[in-house]
Amino acid sequence: MGPHPAVAAIRLAVRRVLHDILNDHTSGEIPGRTAERPPSPLVLVACSGGADSMALASALAFEAPRLGIRAGGVTVDHGLQAGSDLRADEVALRLRGLGLDPVESVAVTVGRQGGPEAAARDARYAALDAVSERHGATAILLGHTRDDQAETVLLGLARGSGIRSLSGMAAVSGAGGRYRRPFLQLDRQTARKACMVQSLPVWDDPHNADPAYTRSRLRHEGLPALEKALGKGVVEALARTAQLSRDDADALDSWARQAEGSVRDGSGLLECAKLYALPPAVRRRILRRAAIDAGAPAGALFARHIEEVDRLITGWRGQGAINLPGKVVAQRQGGRLVIRQG
Amino acid sequence: MGPHPAVAAIRLAVRRVLHDILNDHTSGEIPGRTAERPPSPLVLVACSGGADSMALASALAFEAPRLGIRAGGVTVDHGLQAGSDLRADEVALRLRGLGLDPVESVAVTVGRQGGPEAAARDARYAALDAVSERHGATAILLGHTRDDQAETVLLGLARGSGIRSLSGMAAVSGAGGRYRRPFLQLDRQTARKACMVQSLPVWDDPHNADPAYTRSRLRHEGLPALEKALGKGVVEALARTAQLSRDDADALDSWARQAEGSVRDGSGLLECAKLYALPPAVRRRILRRAAIDAGAPAGALFARHIEEVDRLITGWRGQGAINLPGKVVAQRQGGRLVIRQG
Repeated sequence: MGPHPAVAAIRLAVRRVLHDILNDHTSGEIPGRTAERPPSPLVLVACSGGADSMALASALAFEAPRLGIRAGGVTVDHGLQAGSDLRADEVALRLRGLGLDPVESVAVTVGRQGGPEAAARDARYAALDAVSERHGATAILLGHTRDDQAETVLLGLARGSGIRSLSGMAAVSGAGGRYRRPFLQLDRQTARKACMVQSLPVWDDPHNADPAYTRSRLRHEGLPALEKALGKGVVEALARTAQLSRDDADALDSWARQAEGSVRDGSGLLECAKLYALPPAVRRRILRRAAIDAGAPAGALFARHIEEVDRLITGWRGQGAINLPGKVVAQRQGGRLVIRQG
Repeated sequence: MGPHPAVAAIRLAVRRVLHDILNDHTSGEIPGRTAERPPSPLVLVACSGGADSMALASALAFEAPRLGIRAGGVTVDHGLQAGSDLRADEVALRLRGLGLDPVESVAVTVGRQGGPEAAARDARYAALDAVSERHGATAILLGHTRDDQAETVLLGLARGSGIRSLSGMAAVSGAGGRYRRPFLQLDRQTARKACMVQSLPVWDDPHNADPAYTRSRLRHEGLPALEKALGKGVVEALARTAQLSRDDADALDSWARQAEGSVRDGSGLLECAKLYALPPAVRRRILRRAAIDAGAPAGALFARHIEEVDRLITGWRGQGAINLPGKVVAQRQGGRLVIRQG
């Protein structure tokens, strides 16, 4: 008798990603450089102790040895709740119990920049990067599921800043493709079931149910209401929207990069007439990039800023300089668009 | 003392669109062809008797004469509720009371194709087209608000078929840009307020509150829950997403049209190697277009169909022919992709 379908599903998802990692790992070798086999790669799992990442850890522990991969784990203590250090130690113990080695529990200090959720995330990824480098890991697996992806798309939708913010989380991200998300097409219920049938104890982060957090409100109220109105396929549709939007945004970014060279004059200034001839989607991407290059912080630059700059091109009636975030100023001068820090 | 802010807002929105219509109307003339002034253009308002379209009718009745435009109205009796004919007559009476002329009440027969909402919409637009042509109208104004747009974006999101379905309703659409939506950036509350302060009686369509309709569930449950989770700016963010997605989808479609010519061989077949070199977003659009050209109905062609065809290019391992809707078959033959009705 094979494993329970939920366990089979999580293992298959991890196996696919491990194959990709092996392919990328071996294709990085210099052929003929050495007759010896390369050292067996190390793959880490980032584990909070919740159902998603515990399921991921269990699947990694099962699949990695079969592919000649070493498997380790990291858990991050954010220090935001009383007793979080003890919990992190307990998660580390469970990871070791699965046969993972090395296993680390890392304490971080969460700052305030960008709000509590963003600050915790920044601290977490910095710690994961450091652990990964210390151990020379080839990849770090993250337990984000299709449900997390759907929530991320809705959070992006609420920003109203275009398709890049609808593209959710990438299956492969970080420096050199370090981060991998094997469960991005797997639903949360399957991960939870896989823990249950494997008798893996899981820890439910109270933050996940705290209505003070946007993501938690979305998970427990927003998405269920949307499913009730639109049908059960909403999560899958949102996840597919993420993938399609990502590909579209990538294609348009590459077009904008190519087009940018052709709309600058000899001294590197943007020519309004040439910008005008471009499709609005491409022109606005060039304007956004120019504002960021001039020093505007990407996170503070909204669609309405770019629209206002765009009107210097498409609705010119002698308007004055436009102030952008980061003390950047955009103005039209003699048929050229000048964007610089004032 | 000027008008109430809500009335000022609806009039401004209509005035802007009437200016656009006048510009398009006069630029269509052949210069020097005649010394006489062209006949004053006729603009119709499509009015259900609900708050949005009654507000629109009142603003059109106010603004049109000031710009030398004749203003008329149409109401469509869908025949779906008892007494709908009497209500249509009453709406027509109210439109005449606003000074609109001509005013027509048109009865239509709603079929079944595509579900009740789509069938009613098809019948309505066919009737509006016919009335418009009979009176030689330059444009028909529709009362869709920013809230309608937000709902349309969420309905598109639930399909999960990419950014074109996120682009909502266009401000200008139909043959020759006949349909105009002046309220697309105006919220429903403003339209309702404008009716109230002008003492315009409005009719609340019971369908709009009927939970049997997806749009109604979205309006009364889905969107409010989403606003509660994500904040009050959701409707505006969705409407902005529509505009940005539309521009992005237009740009990518134009890229795909251009690229298509370069990926066909001498006999017009698609070359797999050349398709492979394109960005996925562009390649998938070319594949979709090819399937539709071969006879696949656009509405039945989903993202997963195109993904499967795409794997003939990106994941070729000798797979067989792929069946698409409309008896269209896609297969790879000697480095070429053949898509045709089987």
